Amino acid sequence: MPQDGQLPLQVRDLLDRADDRQLYELLLSLRPADVAQLLVELPKDGDRLRVFALLSPDAAARVVEELPLELQGAMLRMLPPEQARTVLARMSTDDLADLVAGLKPAESRHLLELVPEEAAEVRRLMQYPPDTAGGLMTPEFIRLTEDQTAACAIETIRRFAPDAETVYYLYVTDGSGRLKGVVSLRKLVVADPGAAVGQLMDRHVVSVPVTMDQEDVARVLRRYNLLAVPVIDERQTLLGVVTVDDVLDVINEETTEDIHRLGGSEPLEQPYLRSRVFTVVRARVSWLLLLFVLQSVTITIMRHYQSTLESVLMLSFFVPLLIGTAGNAGSQASTLVIRSMAVGELTFGDFFRVVSREAVVGTALGGVMAAATWLRARLLGSPPTVGYTVTVTVMLIVVTASVVGGSLPMIIKRLRLDPAVASSPLITTLLDATGLFIYFTVAGWILGIDR
Amino acid sequence: MPQDGQLPLQVRDLLDRADDRQLYELLLSLRPADVAQLLVELPKDGDRLRVFALLSPDAAARVVEELPLELQGAMLRMLPPEQARTVLARMSTDDLADLVAGLKPAESRHLLELVPEEAAEVRRLMQYPPDTAGGLMTPEFIRLTEDQTAACAIETIRRFAPDAETVYYLYVTDGSGRLKGVVSLRKLVVADPGAAVGQLMDRHVVSVPVTMDQEDVARVLRRYNLLAVPVIDERQTLLGVVTVDDVLDVINEETTEDIHRLGGSEPLEQPYLRSRVFTVVRARVSWLLLLFVLQSVTITIMRHYQSTLESVLMLSFFVPLLIGTAGNAGSQASTLVIRSMAVGELTFGDFFRVVSREAVVGTALGGVMAAATWLRARLLGSPPTVGYTVTVTVMLIVVTASVVGGSLPMIIKRLRLDPAVASSPLITTLLDATGLFIYFTVAGWILGIDR
Repeated sequence: MPQDGQLPLQVRDLLDRADDRQLYELLLSLRPADVAQLLVELPKDGDRLRVFALLSPDAAARVVEELPLELQGAMLRMLPPEQARTVLARMSTDDLADLVAGLKPAESRHLLELVPEEAAEVRRLMQYPPDTAGGLMTPEFIRLTEDQTAACAIETIRRFAPDAETVYYLYVTDGSGRLKGVVSLRKLVVADPGAAVGQLMDRHVVSVPVTMDQEDVARVLRRYNLLAVPVIDERQTLLGVVTVDDVLDVINEETTEDIHRLGGSEPLEQPYLRSRVFTVVRARVSWLLLLFVLQSVTITIMRHYQSTLESVLMLSFFVPLLIGTAGNAGSQASTLVIRSMAVGELTFGDFFRVVSREAVVGTALGGVMAAATWLRARLLGSPPTVGYTVTVTVMLIVVTASVVGGSLPMIIKRLRLDPAVASSPLITTLLDATGLFIYFTVAGWILGIDR
Repeated sequence: MPQDGQLPLQVRDLLDRADDRQLYELLLSLRPADVAQLLVELPKDGDRLRVFALLSPDAAARVVEELPLELQGAMLRMLPPEQARTVLARMSTDDLADLVAGLKPAESRHLLELVPEEAAEVRRLMQYPPDTAGGLMTPEFIRLTEDQTAACAIETIRRFAPDAETVYYLYVTDGSGRLKGVVSLRKLVVADPGAAVGQLMDRHVVSVPVTMDQEDVARVLRRYNLLAVPVIDERQTLLGVVTVDDVLDVINEETTEDIHRLGGSEPLEQPYLRSRVFTVVRARVSWLLLLFVLQSVTITIMRHYQSTLESVLMLSFFVPLLIGTAGNAGSQASTLVIRSMAVGELTFGDFFRVVSREAVVGTALGGVMAAATWLRARLLGSPPTVGYTVTVTVMLIVVTASVVGGSLPMIIKRLRLDPAVASSPLITTLLDATGLFIYFTVAGWILGIDR
């Protein structure tokens, strides 16, 4: 792997010296992902084109596949039509479909006209929602039949290998294209050349429906340690194959999305430092404003208890600590539950188990925190009644926070929204108002204040 | 894939009816991961043993590899020594090393005595820290030499395939075991049988040092779309291979750890619902207490400004809203930066770019929030001076929160701690005190209150 940051300097130096020979040698030693990153980091379009011109059509196609989508389009627009055509023709169909899907209609039509042979297949793939098995699969795979021999199967691979995305699992179909089994290249190579594929194949093949959500597809590959999984329709017809390298990208994307949501923003699609400032502001401001509106209720609550605060001003000193503790406890519970749901360990069916578990955990945590609060109030030298008030409040607040934090993500999921929107900021905000209400109610009881 | 929850019921029914024949048929149709989950869900050890007894030694080994570590140990302890021996002998060496590493010394010695041939290899693997390339690699791979022909290489694979973890990438070494290149099984199969491996192989092979952190190893596989990556020492000697299925597990584990930290708990090692209540409480109470202590400063600050609050009680109404907004803005910034660091997009070298970016983003966000706050104060009918105070405070607070939230995770990483400990709860807590300080300082200026 090249050293971070070294490579663009080296390449720009070679470009300045117009040393195409050495640049060519350097490019040969790089992997497509490294050349793609280099193109991202080069500042001038002219330099990008000069680097690109030195790549073979195959290498150029691999590099384009590794570029961020918006740069793929920009790069192809810069190329002369003939060169764009050779690159497009060599790109894998699923990457081509992703690229075309991201372009304006006129542009995508123009691109597809350059590669009429691939266009039909690309249009077919574009029917499937991008975040499903159908949107993720490649139609470029090798299919075998049960009556082929191992030797004949290997001959098939020899012929179609350059076009196939994966040759390590070979899927076996019947006359009408239905999935019947799978045989690994390992098994074919090790087998007696005369053995029939039907004998060698595993009939208990794990497959996924074309409509399956991409996160669930990822989970299937991980659970069964697969390098690829076949995609079928409701009649068991084999439509395509999802490979593990695409799944690694999906997991990465989905995790980033979840984590951005958990922090209380809309997800950024580009890396943080490469996103425009306006994009970052937009992703954050909507949530900040929404939370601000929700949190405004706290002003109303505080004002409602104005006379309580006037008679015992000391109560106000504890407000940040109490609602902060509520937010922390709630944020812990919601995050644990959100992650458990994301990896498929928890479903809505576990709702009451989660609620009762959080009630128990919250009671234990509340007990510990109540003790700490009582000590803190003593240290401050507050009157015993104020001490009792904050101690009881913390106990109630931590239990409430744990139960709300644990159940809210499940309710949100039930409403078919992303449970990760039950972010720490949202939970904290909701619990601020709840916490204040509990606090002043308890204060009313213990201090006997008539409002 | 079996329906969730259906399978254990079906199996328990078959166990109750002692229908071993049908149970055997059912087990044959399941994948190792499914049988492992079944064993986890069966309540009685006796049932587990009966299911286990129906598995072939190879199937049993695959199932044990898929069990959670603590159940692997328990299962092997239950088996008669002879059966335990056959299972252990068939387990892959890296899984065996993980199992043994988790046992008490006496137990691990006992297990290794059952499989003397594997013991040396297992002990060698156990030298490497578990979260590095060395801890993740398998020593069971096939090595080729440059002068072999493709046909001879395939013959080698035929011979060693059953023991090798991966046969899809074959690594080529010289006489002293140094890594020279890689050739894919696909290429070998497609090649002229007489072609030399030295001609077919790719010399620009991506490899990772044995000491590399497992998260970085995962990143290398993802970046280059690899199914496996060779692990080398500082003299380029090939030591083992990390396969993509292990990397998927690593990513899953590391993400769970990050997300648990981001929510303000210590990571749980077991799934949330399977963890003991005590374990969940312990993971959460330490952070709750620490945050409580940090947040106690807010009491001191509030009391310090007691006279300000006494003269303008209305200022207290805005406290939850102001510090809440600070926490939200800070939590957004820290989460975006933590994720960027986790996927390797950001390093400490970007510190000043992040700070200046957050200053700009924070100013824009602060402007919007200030406008919202001014409106809210107007709606409440508060005096203009209070309106000015809260408006200016929000502006300053949001900028501060963004900059602190963006920079703290980088500083924490620099201190060689996990940046994910800069969780939303921690950031929120730190910003509560900061926010109050800003608020009362601004109030002092604008309202001209002498304390």
